[in-house]
Amino acid sequence: MKEKIVYTNEVGATIDRLVEESGAKSVFTIVDVNTAAFCLPLLRETSKAVAASTVLTVKAGDAEKSLEAAAALWKSLSNGGATRSSMIVNVGGGVVTDLGGFVAATFKRGVPYINVPTTLLGAVDAATGGKTGINFNGLKNEVGAFALPAATVVSTVFFKTLPKHEMLSGYAEMLKHALLSGNEALARALSHDAADTDGLLALLRENIKVKTEIVASDPKEAGPRKALNLGHTAGHAFEALAMERRQPIPHGYAVAWGLIVELVLSHLALGYPTTHLYPVVQFVKAHYGSHPIVCDDYPRLLALMAHDKKNASPEEINFTLLHAPGEAEVNRTATAKDIETALDIYRDLTA
Amino acid sequence: MKEKIVYTNEVGATIDRLVEESGAKSVFTIVDVNTAAFCLPLLRETSKAVAASTVLTVKAGDAEKSLEAAAALWKSLSNGGATRSSMIVNVGGGVVTDLGGFVAATFKRGVPYINVPTTLLGAVDAATGGKTGINFNGLKNEVGAFALPAATVVSTVFFKTLPKHEMLSGYAEMLKHALLSGNEALARALSHDAADTDGLLALLRENIKVKTEIVASDPKEAGPRKALNLGHTAGHAFEALAMERRQPIPHGYAVAWGLIVELVLSHLALGYPTTHLYPVVQFVKAHYGSHPIVCDDYPRLLALMAHDKKNASPEEINFTLLHAPGEAEVNRTATAKDIETALDIYRDLTA
Repeated sequence: MKEKIVYTNEVGATIDRLVEESGAKSVFTIVDVNTAAFCLPLLRETSKAVAASTVLTVKAGDAEKSLEAAAALWKSLSNGGATRSSMIVNVGGGVVTDLGGFVAATFKRGVPYINVPTTLLGAVDAATGGKTGINFNGLKNEVGAFALPAATVVSTVFFKTLPKHEMLSGYAEMLKHALLSGNEALARALSHDAADTDGLLALLRENIKVKTEIVASDPKEAGPRKALNLGHTAGHAFEALAMERRQPIPHGYAVAWGLIVELVLSHLALGYPTTHLYPVVQFVKAHYGSHPIVCDDYPRLLALMAHDKKNASPEEINFTLLHAPGEAEVNRTATAKDIETALDIYRDLTA
Repeated sequence: MKEKIVYTNEVGATIDRLVEESGAKSVFTIVDVNTAAFCLPLLRETSKAVAASTVLTVKAGDAEKSLEAAAALWKSLSNGGATRSSMIVNVGGGVVTDLGGFVAATFKRGVPYINVPTTLLGAVDAATGGKTGINFNGLKNEVGAFALPAATVVSTVFFKTLPKHEMLSGYAEMLKHALLSGNEALARALSHDAADTDGLLALLRENIKVKTEIVASDPKEAGPRKALNLGHTAGHAFEALAMERRQPIPHGYAVAWGLIVELVLSHLALGYPTTHLYPVVQFVKAHYGSHPIVCDDYPRLLALMAHDKKNASPEEINFTLLHAPGEAEVNRTATAKDIETALDIYRDLTA
């Protein structure tokens, strides 16, 4: 099924049109405390549907992707008379769209919902693709559902007040999509200033399409969709190690550095051309700086990669690797030695 | 999508074949305390997959379709190392298949599951069609998901020890399917002894097909699937009123009596032929007896019907009605006066 995404900065009017087309009989808007303060006022002014809606507010932050928060939202929907003919509008970053999407997907066995991502990372990552969920039993997205939104409204109007590191965090995912797309998309992504919102909407349109086409070919992640994990195996390990040392790094930064490690692995294993490797390294260094690691970190990084992939041993770890921009191969295993070599080269390149 | 249903009394061997074909790497069996005692021993003897599986036991009864029970199952799956490559086998009646199906549909965004209904009602109703869910906020199935099982194994081996009223309760749903199918299916359903398990498996095969074809045409209940509500609007009202008076009646009995009311309404509104009405009345009286009501019950019954359909007023209530066996029309509204006339005739017919 083709996912519906509208690229526009006329967000309010677009929500109204989508709600009207859906024939929804009532609207519930889910926000977190931040988007309640910074995004909801504009939407209330520009959208009749949002202005007339019941607003449900959750806390901000990943801890809110909880069963307790989901239960509170189900209860509010139930007491508020929501039905399968209602529409839920999720206004926020990944926490709101993951949580709100899961609640929508499961209330009365499914209420349609519209995602209005308010961060770049939300727009390019969580808001599309239909992965919804909550954290449970100490594990991320342990409970959830695949449920595509009725529509996602992608705009840049809410990005102007985002801190620069938030923009960069989202841009790392765009870089990943460009790498999965091909030479031309990669060239365009590398020539755009990562923190610049001007011209971003057009770039988002071509960039998010890369993801939605992969998702449409494999909605429930049986295989090809794993291509979207590019950069994330090494990236998650960087992120987890930094967290263990109480010096957390933003998710997108970890992905940017992880992309370098996995492109080096791609070069070693599949001959990914260095002509398309060095420009990415330069871009990442220029915008994200370097993330220094030492040899003593390798065993823990390997263990974290193995854990992330639920592998029994760190001797054979699954990656998505590239033959070239636009030519991904999923389920490529790499040995501990391969990965250590790639980490060595990563250190040289980013030194 | 066509739903996979296997009709066989070789239940254990069939589960093994289905698990093997799926390539599942681990199996979790969900039972309630009753099926743990009466059904699990046979399955352990005859199925290697069940014998080697992790067994998760829930309480019996509708109160167990709760968020707390779902959370306990998610936790057991998480701690037990279940993945999207596992298989969940639900062994039980509607409570187990609704709860276990919902937990499977949402654990890690969806683990495949096999339903093994152990009651006739479960086989003809809850185990197929992909409606899963839990009760929440005092409302039935307020939270849930549409998620088809990987397969349902329909057998009669577990029915031999069921009380007669349990068999009759399930048979009322079979009667409904036969009415939705046509003259021939209706004749066959009326000539089968409702409490007889011999020959039931072949009858189940043709009968459940009526439901799964309707479901396949409308998996998320946008319209045509409402045909399956036949008999249930009046039936739920009978059931709820009896509950209010602390003289509960079995669900299937309420449906059987509700079918009479709605066939009478069908006759009045759509000319449903009396030649196909009287035999149904005779069958229901012979097997289910009569459910006497008086004029003073009408206002409460109408209010309960309106509430069931979420109508604002009891003046216009939605029904699924029949022009003839096999010719359903959904979303037919009836006025309070129509329904009162139908209730008058129901009383005459069942007196």
